[in-house]
Formats: sequence, structure tokens, C-alpha cells
Amino acid sequence: MKPEQPNPFAIRRQRVARKMQEQGVSILLLEDAEHLRDPSVRYLSGHPQDALLFLRSDGHSLLVPWDVPVANLHAQVEEILPYNQFDRQLPQAVVGVLKHWGINPSESFNMELGGQEPYVTVVELEQSLKKEFPNGDLICRKEGVSSYIEECRQIKSEEELTFLEKAAGITNEVLHSLEKLLSEERPIPETEVALFIEIEARKRGAEGTSFQTIAAGPNRSFAIHAYPTFGSGLFKDPATPGLSILDFGIFYQGYTSDVTLTLACGTLTERRRFLIDLVEEGYQKALSLCKPGMASWEIAEAVQAVFSRHSLSMPHSLGHGIGLAVHERPFFRLKKNGGAVLTPGMVVTIEPGLYEEGTGGVRLENDILITETGHRVLTEAKILYG
Amino acid sequence: MKPEQPNPFAIRRQRVARKMQEQGVSILLLEDAEHLRDPSVRYLSGHPQDALLFLRSDGHSLLVPWDVPVANLHAQVEEILPYNQFDRQLPQAVVGVLKHWGINPSESFNMELGGQEPYVTVVELEQSLKKEFPNGDLICRKEGVSSYIEECRQIKSEEELTFLEKAAGITNEVLHSLEKLLSEERPIPETEVALFIEIEARKRGAEGTSFQTIAAGPNRSFAIHAYPTFGSGLFKDPATPGLSILDFGIFYQGYTSDVTLTLACGTLTERRRFLIDLVEEGYQKALSLCKPGMASWEIAEAVQAVFSRHSLSMPHSLGHGIGLAVHERPFFRLKKNGGAVLTPGMVVTIEPGLYEEGTGGVRLENDILITETGHRVLTEAKILYG
Repeated sequence: MKPEQPNPFAIRRQRVARKMQEQGVSILLLEDAEHLRDPSVRYLSGHPQDALLFLRSDGHSLLVPWDVPVANLHAQVEEILPYNQFDRQLPQAVVGVLKHWGINPSESFNMELGGQEPYVTVVELEQSLKKEFPNGDLICRKEGVSSYIEECRQIKSEEELTFLEKAAGITNEVLHSLEKLLSEERPIPETEVALFIEIEARKRGAEGTSFQTIAAGPNRSFAIHAYPTFGSGLFKDPATPGLSILDFGIFYQGYTSDVTLTLACGTLTERRRFLIDLVEEGYQKALSLCKPGMASWEIAEAVQAVFSRHSLSMPHSLGHGIGLAVHERPFFRLKKNGGAVLTPGMVVTIEPGLYEEGTGGVRLENDILITETGHRVLTEAKILYG
Repeated sequence: MKPEQPNPFAIRRQRVARKMQEQGVSILLLEDAEHLRDPSVRYLSGHPQDALLFLRSDGHSLLVPWDVPVANLHAQVEEILPYNQFDRQLPQAVVGVLKHWGINPSESFNMELGGQEPYVTVVELEQSLKKEFPNGDLICRKEGVSSYIEECRQIKSEEELTFLEKAAGITNEVLHSLEKLLSEERPIPETEVALFIEIEARKRGAEGTSFQTIAAGPNRSFAIHAYPTFGSGLFKDPATPGLSILDFGIFYQGYTSDVTLTLACGTLTERRRFLIDLVEEGYQKALSLCKPGMASWEIAEAVQAVFSRHSLSMPHSLGHGIGLAVHERPFFRLKKNGGAVLTPGMVVTIEPGLYEEGTGGVRLENDILITETGHRVLTEAKILYG
């Protein structure tokens, strides 16, 4: 708790406070919990895990963490109150914090709840709140302040870019080691590949992989996200030549990378060759369009057009922002499903993929920083042959 | 897709359909998504990941998976429609499925949404739905059918018990290997301990660890959930004797285990000895009460009473159910915060813990099956000395 020094979290909170004033929101409540992850809590407080974060429109912040010792180490906020003090119950914490702040029972205020809060929680909270603060109004809407914070999170600060570039750098070292491993002339179990990544990443200072590594050999690569994500299947088994998919990311200071490579083994059938070429074409198409001013949907539609010429379509979005979350704005979906105009400081993935039962799957994914003049590809995943 | 054979999922769905009839719910929608995990989707369909599950009160089921090839391998439902067909948008999928079922635009029906669905999603969905089905009512409430399913999930079937016991069995083998590792006379990095668990578990057929292993050496064990969960800290460093915490679980067929051991190293200070003894006392107290008919809150309060005699309190709940989720009902909290009466077939954790900055943390956690006559402890975590 170091509220005296201006810190990146306080600077972000000031920006949010101005938005709150604009929107007439006097209190904002964000929750990060097991059933409801909200990286905005960390973005605005520095606290990495389960907590309620209360922000006032005067810029004051109060954290109600589940784990106080962790908050004492990481959170940079004005006040910390233990969740235990409120029996770890959301409505009690809300009423308790308002009272702690000396808010008068008859006072009027607008309190916004993070847009992901479950319906039943909102209804319950409204009931508890109305008992103690009959003039307090609860707001929960799609285009509220919490949505504005997600918008802010799209454009990375210099410090955030340092972390993301470090995550990308470690990822590249892991990719190079992987390339060596996958050049060995033997069947390599999916599990060995996945654990190799975990070990290589941590050796280099990563906090770990940022999601369950997907290592799917040729028999399973036709799924977008194979289940289980890795197992006893084999990469490079001469008995099953074809396409294997390897999708992983690592965390550095809470910031993620996210890459996918495809390993093509043995003599490729014409169809497999065709899918690889088409994914590469889509990938190059996307890269050529990644620059400030382009809308994410324009790029998604351009890649879809590449696939549509062959009556194929991609069963997932073309890419997404990365940061404190593995999937965050901007999303690269078709126009009708929204998106964002690319802006310098955004870090996004581009990950075209095509999948066919029998043939297998191909996906190629790298992390891209949008710059003033275009983009910079941060990671070095590619189609491997072996 | 094998709807012809009665399967465990169909049997569960029949039970849910009866509840729907009782409550006047004609359609139930559950969602499992990255931002909103709901293991009830897998419980009722067999599909392990992201999907919408629609159930009708006549027992008919329809899955809208994100990854169709995975659904084709795992889901046991009457119908599968790709989420892509609805642009991967919830409101479109709902309207699309109702039309697919031939529901008349003027028809009346009550449709329940899983209780965790975000407020803004519910409001949006209601708007889209009303346009096409003006007499369709959306229900979202705490004590609805989706809550009933969570209740059902508390009592494990024989097949589920097989999976949970296998998960516990693998966990015990890992615990034995760990004991050997931790008996080595050298400083052992947290990362080595955590990766050792991952490797040993997968070797034995586990799908992997079920949450990020917490391996916190003596400098960090005072946090309940240390962040990062493991790093370069050391277990068994003679320079820092004291208390280390190791908390992990593994998945087998989607079902989890969850255990915690404390490693006490070097000559213990009086305070550390005292905390260990008190946690052991609380643990034994809890076990002595684990039997059918006891309420989870009675046990939580009894353990709290043990700690209160020394003016200490536990900063987390005493335990929780395990199954397809790592934390599920019943929860062992104080009475005012709810819970459940223990019933044969429940599988729960008991995990008293005490934490002090300076002193460190102690937690002991095992998995317990509630039987007709009492309980059976499935796992073998304990306080280790080294």
C-alpha cells in the first residue's frame, strides 16, 4: 500500500475517475473471483487475484481482497479492508464499505457494477443496498465505465509493452528450443511437448503457461481446442503422418503471450498441403492489413474472403487482444459482431485456422504490436515440417 | 451422439426434466464459456468445454458447441448445432434454437437461464427474445432449476465415485513420490516441486493438475494463495527454516482431487509448533463430525471454536465439495452463510488453515467421501517434517 507515490495504477484510476464524473457514476465496483475473472481489478490496483475493488469518482480506491497478505505485497491502493470482515459476502461488503466511507443513509448516489456480474447477484445486491441506502441506485450496463476500462486496456502503456515484449521474447526462446525438440527423429508424446514448454518457459523467468497448452497430434488436431489438451498421443509418429497443432502462451508479470504452430509430418496429402497454403495465405493477408486505422472486422472479413473462395470458413475468430487477459478487446470478428479500429499500442494475435476431420487442423498464430506506421510481429511461430 | 442408449447424462437430464415440469420451466439454458464456467453443461451432456446446452421439459437436449469435432467425440445429446451457425452470439443461438424446434412466435413458454449469466447478457437476451417470441418469459433466479442441478451434483453416482477415487488414488501416489523428493537433504525450488507433481500425475494417467499448484516456501506461506503460485523460492533451505505450503489437485476424467500439505523444516519455533498443533486439532475435530446428518456449517463452526479459544480465526472456508468443479457445493462456512446437510455420496475437502506474517502458514487438506455410516478419507496428505 503505497498511496503517496504516483504509480501506474493511480494514473489509470484517475482516468477512470474522470469517466465516472462524465457518466454520473459516484462509485464503481469491480470483482475478480474464481467464477468471474476481471483483470481490470489488477489493471487498476496491482492486486493479482480475488478481490472487490471500489473506486470513487474523486479517485479514491479501496480494495477488499480475499488474501490480505498478498494484497499487502502487491496492491497499490488507498485502503485495504479484508473480505473476511464482511463474511466474504458481496452485499455485506458493499454496505460495509459505504458505511466505512461515512455515506449517509439518505444520500443519493449511482453505483456501477462490473458488467459481467451475474443477474441474481445484481438483484440480491440491489435488495440489500436499498434497505440501508434507499436513495442509492445500482447501475449495470454494457456501455458503462467498466466497459470503458476494457477499452483503455486495449492500448498498452510503455510499462505494459515492456512486459508483453518480455513475454514474447521468452516465448520465442521456447519456440527455438521446441524446434530443436521437434527435429528429433522419434515419436514425441504430446505430454512431453507440453511439459517441455512449461519447463523451458519457467527456466527463463515466466510465471508459467497462461492457459493449458494444446498439444494435439495428427489424430486430434481437427479439433480447435482438443480435449484433453494433451495426452498420450504422439507427434512425429511415422504411423500417423499429418498435421499436429501446438498452442501455448506464457505469463510474464501477469501479461501473456499466445502462439500456435502447426507441425506437418511425413509426405503431405494434397489436401493437407492445400490447407497449410490457405492458412498461410490468410495469415499474410491479415498481416498486410494490420495497421492503425484499419478495423479489426475489415481484417477478419478479408481473411474470411480468402477462405470463402474455396468454400471454407474459419470456425473461430481471426484474433484477439492480449494483455492481463489471454482474450481481450479488440476481437477480430465479422463486422456485424463488432470490433475496434486498430490503434498504436494495441497488442493482438492473428490466428487463422482451418480444420477437417480426417485431414486434421492447421493454425498459425503470432502476437502483433500495432505501431504508428504499421505493425511489428513480436513472436516467431511458423509452420514446421518434420 | 448416441441418443439411442440410455447413458448417465440422459438419466441426469430426466431428473432435471422432472424438476422443470414441477417448476413450470419449459426450456433451460446453461452456458459454459471462458468467462463463465458451468460444469453442469458437462454433467448433463458429457461435452467437456465451451457450449450452450438447451434442455426441454420433455427431456430433449440440444448442444450448441463452440468446437463441433470435440462435441462429436464426447457429447451424448439428442442434437448438436454448431455455435458458428449463430455467429457465436448467445441471443442469435437462443432465437435460432427455438425456431429450429418449431416453436410458434405466439407460443407461451418459460425459459430459465443458468443463475450465473451476467446481468447485461440477460437484459440483452430478453430484448432479442421478445421481438421474436413476445409471449416467451425469461427466468433467472437463485433457486431455479440450475441451482437444483448444482444440488444434484453434490451426491455422486457410482460412476462419478469411480473417477473421484481414481483421482484420489493417483494423488496419493504423487504424495508418496513427493514425500521422497522432500526427504532429500537439499534446497528444492518451488518450481521443481510443482513440475514434479505435474509430471508424476500425468505419468499415472491424470489429465493434468486441476488448478495452478501452490508451492510456497517459508517466506511466502503466510499467504493463503501465494502469488505467483510457485517461483524461485526454496523448500528446505537451511537459511529459512519454517513452514512451506503445497496445495494441488489433479483431474481424472474431468473429476478432481484437492489436497494440501505443510512441510515444516528445521527446529520449529514455539509459535510454528503451536499453529501446526492447532490446525491438526481443527482437522481432527472436523473429521470426527463428518457423517451423514451433520450440517456443513456445524462442522465449520466447531473448527472455528477450536481456533477462537486462542483468538485466531481461519481466513477461508473449512472446505468444499469437489467433482467436475474444484469448488462446488457443499461449502463449509459459518451457519449464516449457508451450507448443506452431509449426505452419503458427497465428496468434500476438509482444509483448516492458519496464517501469520512472520510465522508462515499451515494448511492440511484431504478429500473425504461421506458414507452411510460416517466417512472415508480418500487422500493421504499430512504435515511433513524435514
